[in-house]
Amino acid sequence: MASSGFWSLGGQNADNPGNQSPSATRAWCQAAAQKFPGGLGSKLCAMLNVGEEEKPADTPTKQEQETLDETCGCNKPCNCSKAATGFSDLYSTDLLPALDGDAKTMTFLQEVVDILLAYIVESFDRSTKVIDFHYPNELLQRNNWELSDDPESLDDILVSCRATLKYAIKTAHPRYFNQLSTGLDMVGLAADWLTSTANTNMFTYEVAPVFVLLEYVTLKKMREIIGWPEGRGDGIFSPGGAISNMYAMLLARFKMFPEVKEKGMSSIPKLAAFTSEHSHFSIKKGAAALGIGTESVICIKVDETGKMIPSDLEKKILEAKQKGLVPFFVSATAGTTVYGAFDPLIAISDICKKYNVWFHVDGAWGGSLLMSQKHRGKLNGVERANSMTWNPHKMMAVPLQCSALLVREEGLMQNCNQMHAVYLFQQDKHYDLSYDTGDKALQCGRHVDIFKLWLMWRAKGTIGFEAQIDKCLELSEYLYNKIKDREGYEMIFNGKPQHTNVCFWYLPPGVRCIEDKVEKTERLAKVAPVIKARMMEYGTTMVSYQPQGDKVNFFRMVISNPAATLEDIDFLIEEIERLGHDL
Amino acid sequence: MASSGFWSLGGQNADNPGNQSPSATRAWCQAAAQKFPGGLGSKLCAMLNVGEEEKPADTPTKQEQETLDETCGCNKPCNCSKAATGFSDLYSTDLLPALDGDAKTMTFLQEVVDILLAYIVESFDRSTKVIDFHYPNELLQRNNWELSDDPESLDDILVSCRATLKYAIKTAHPRYFNQLSTGLDMVGLAADWLTSTANTNMFTYEVAPVFVLLEYVTLKKMREIIGWPEGRGDGIFSPGGAISNMYAMLLARFKMFPEVKEKGMSSIPKLAAFTSEHSHFSIKKGAAALGIGTESVICIKVDETGKMIPSDLEKKILEAKQKGLVPFFVSATAGTTVYGAFDPLIAISDICKKYNVWFHVDGAWGGSLLMSQKHRGKLNGVERANSMTWNPHKMMAVPLQCSALLVREEGLMQNCNQMHAVYLFQQDKHYDLSYDTGDKALQCGRHVDIFKLWLMWRAKGTIGFEAQIDKCLELSEYLYNKIKDREGYEMIFNGKPQHTNVCFWYLPPGVRCIEDKVEKTERLAKVAPVIKARMMEYGTTMVSYQPQGDKVNFFRMVISNPAATLEDIDFLIEEIERLGHDL
Repeated sequence: MASSGFWSLGGQNADNPGNQSPSATRAWCQAAAQKFPGGLGSKLCAMLNVGEEEKPADTPTKQEQETLDETCGCNKPCNCSKAATGFSDLYSTDLLPALDGDAKTMTFLQEVVDILLAYIVESFDRSTKVIDFHYPNELLQRNNWELSDDPESLDDILVSCRATLKYAIKTAHPRYFNQLSTGLDMVGLAADWLTSTANTNMFTYEVAPVFVLLEYVTLKKMREIIGWPEGRGDGIFSPGGAISNMYAMLLARFKMFPEVKEKGMSSIPKLAAFTSEHSHFSIKKGAAALGIGTESVICIKVDETGKMIPSDLEKKILEAKQKGLVPFFVSATAGTTVYGAFDPLIAISDICKKYNVWFHVDGAWGGSLLMSQKHRGKLNGVERANSMTWNPHKMMAVPLQCSALLVREEGLMQNCNQMHAVYLFQQDKHYDLSYDTGDKALQCGRHVDIFKLWLMWRAKGTIGFEAQIDKCLELSEYLYNKIKDREGYEMIFNGKPQHTNVCFWYLPPGVRCIEDKVEKTERLAKVAPVIKARMMEYGTTMVSYQPQGDKVNFFRMVISNPAATLEDIDFLIEEIERLGHDL
Repeated sequence: MASSGFWSLGGQNADNPGNQSPSATRAWCQAAAQKFPGGLGSKLCAMLNVGEEEKPADTPTKQEQETLDETCGCNKPCNCSKAATGFSDLYSTDLLPALDGDAKTMTFLQEVVDILLAYIVESFDRSTKVIDFHYPNELLQRNNWELSDDPESLDDILVSCRATLKYAIKTAHPRYFNQLSTGLDMVGLAADWLTSTANTNMFTYEVAPVFVLLEYVTLKKMREIIGWPEGRGDGIFSPGGAISNMYAMLLARFKMFPEVKEKGMSSIPKLAAFTSEHSHFSIKKGAAALGIGTESVICIKVDETGKMIPSDLEKKILEAKQKGLVPFFVSATAGTTVYGAFDPLIAISDICKKYNVWFHVDGAWGGSLLMSQKHRGKLNGVERANSMTWNPHKMMAVPLQCSALLVREEGLMQNCNQMHAVYLFQQDKHYDLSYDTGDKALQCGRHVDIFKLWLMWRAKGTIGFEAQIDKCLELSEYLYNKIKDREGYEMIFNGKPQHTNVCFWYLPPGVRCIEDKVEKTERLAKVAPVIKARMMEYGTTMVSYQPQGDKVNFFRMVISNPAATLEDIDFLIEEIERLGHDL
């Protein structure tokens, strides 16, 4: 890959393009001015040091020319990184909507894009670090991050952009495995750039006509994939899976006790919600927020692979009823956070039906497997759900944030959440008001999260997502097969991973031979944190670890990064052993 | 402004740049290849139709060359918009992380950026429409928005991007006044593009080191501006003002009754919250969600300018106590949604102190006036608040979404919301865990909303924000002075606007002369909706209207758009009269 502004900032000794003959550059500029927006065309010419007498056909205005003349023009390899870009005397007030701000704006934005393009290419390069890690206090001191009264020049702004990326984590890096959301999709990124440029709000059709329609189209498609007849139902894109789960709990409560909206929890019986002991913490967080209380979230036992045990669910429902609680909500998990387990949805749905309890499926992590013919069977029974959380920003690698709540009953969200604000949802508007979807949300303003998913879906097709997901599962099976019998490794549970989660201990040679069980466990608990810290300090890869129940710290490898390959899996294992061998 | 891909798509008859002599283009390409990332340099060359024999110094690989060869090469003005861009045979799978995907990725992203740059320049151009409006069913049919199994080419993806922008609302347009959030800041946009590229999550320092620090720095600065000693306290950026207000209510409840987190609302007395009858609907929405119930939100009377009447607040608190309710939360509004009124914070805070009630200030709209020495006096008393909502995405024109909740007491958010998820907030990490801020949020994953505000603040300085805000208030005063005595206008309330909200009726000549009061009111109620519908159909401007209490539909003009000028205010009035004259 060629060099770029990001690396070459004041450093590289590239030949100065100003060495080209004036006629050559002028000829090109005439073409460029016709092909590109004025600012970009002008900028390209400026970088080739076209003087006043060599102006291209698209003659810049006086003000533009002043900008362009800021180029350093020293005609030899140099370190004048600031002056060379021509931004040291420009301020944000010179950009649009400033008069004649067009060219300066485009030059500035193009400069930012050049920085971003270079960062993107660097991010996918395995020879670069995943992170240039610094401790918080050190990072605070490595740069001036303070806010002051006076403005900075656009040159300083560009320097800040570069510094921010220098210390950022490269989430696109093929060896970044730290979270359930990894990778960077190029079409998704393009869509997010467009979304930022459109800078609007989902609450009404009048301010987001296309995005509201795309949300409608996409939610319907997702409901069809769940298996609800003709894709009927409702839904919304919310700011993350925790909020989607909270919506589900809110709807379940309202469905059973609609008076709670006006009269509050003191008007209804004490409720009970049920979820597995391996489920996501957002179920309890939601219960705390909604005034239900965390103690009313009853944890159901899981089997050794992390799946909810239906008989324990039924037992706990009966116990709750005996205590006078009203069971109103069961959240089954399709793809638990740590083990990647899929709760048995059919058996759970039967119990929900029997006891008339709302059946929610938290598929934030595992829901995307519905896109795969090979793996969607793991969610059999999801079509019986009353609601489902499904985060395309995880396994489908849509840029953050993109989380959907899908609801089977139409109209319930609106009834549950609407407040009829007349300044926003005027009833005498001239278009079909069913497209003003804002009143069914908890939020007032709502960020446009739909476009990146929609555009990626168009670019990949359903089969493209399927291939991407299947590949990640194949990689995790490869990892599992590689380590399950390897010396020094111990799997946290037996059997092939259901999702891409591979949970394992690495036992360094010095730990393997310890005979005292207590001492061995104590030593083992410290292995993963140290290896992780070393990974970050070397910046070579990142993977998560945690304890679970009585199991001390173990690695949870997850693969949602479309850039990962077999080679990266091999690297991870080598790196764990390299960094942990001495522990 | 020069033409660009967006407008010239298959239409314009610009001279074909391929007409340049090969030596001129080759000379330029050699320079460009050194100056720009490979993809961009190659693309520029390709657009000048450099053949194999004219390869630039930065010779593309075979795969790249195949891409470049896709250019139409017809050597004359033509309509081959698709083939000309070279994307018709390329798919998302050809982009990174594909092998040799660098050049194609950069060419594709640059093409998207060209579309966006052209859209930006167009958006600020007053001669273009604010919106190319179509009714939902019509818009659904004007384009193929469906999702299918099979992928589309990148050319089709670019066509979709153009179509999306064609029907989008131009929120940057100087005559877009429809919402409290208007305008498009160029540095903010650049920051949002960077945020998308970094594609990470605010929950832990390890995955968002810089952004977590910038949130820390910025929240501290905001608290200093509120007036809390040394900027101490807490806070979070949340997905919008409604959620920020909900956080405040959640904290107030937890502060008074910490057992509610575990035991729920059934373990505590019945609560009462207080807010003015002109306050934002999110207070009731929050109360419904939190299980408090909308009936427990007691509305306080406002004076004729929309300010809460403190004596009525005290009266209602006493009434609530007599009924056995426990007053726990008062939300005063700094800048109401419709009138822009500022509740008298000092008087309200005295009452809150007297009755030991949490004092929240909803400054989603008006909080930004704290940045202005001239106008911050309207929020006198805010320093006494327990919490404050402040949305930089409104009056400070930060791109959506950017909303902060500021909290005076340190540690309360953490205690209220934490669930100690060990897979995310491991306690044996190697860095200072106080920077893992995720457990104080309701969300698990959290979008990075901080960078655009931080970068804009660096670019403008506090004084730049101040100037921008002062200018909007001057414009609204200009509008007020222009119409307060103008024939056909009637102000909704007397006196200069406190914020940029100017609320008025326009009475067309045919309505002015109606003597029957009931008939006149009925006719007047229909005027604003019709004018608004016509504005949208002509696409010339957009402004909001609504009824309030016994006042039939009136216009609520708000100015937060930094691009607006006196001329645009004049235009708005002319346009209202042009479109409403016959009604």
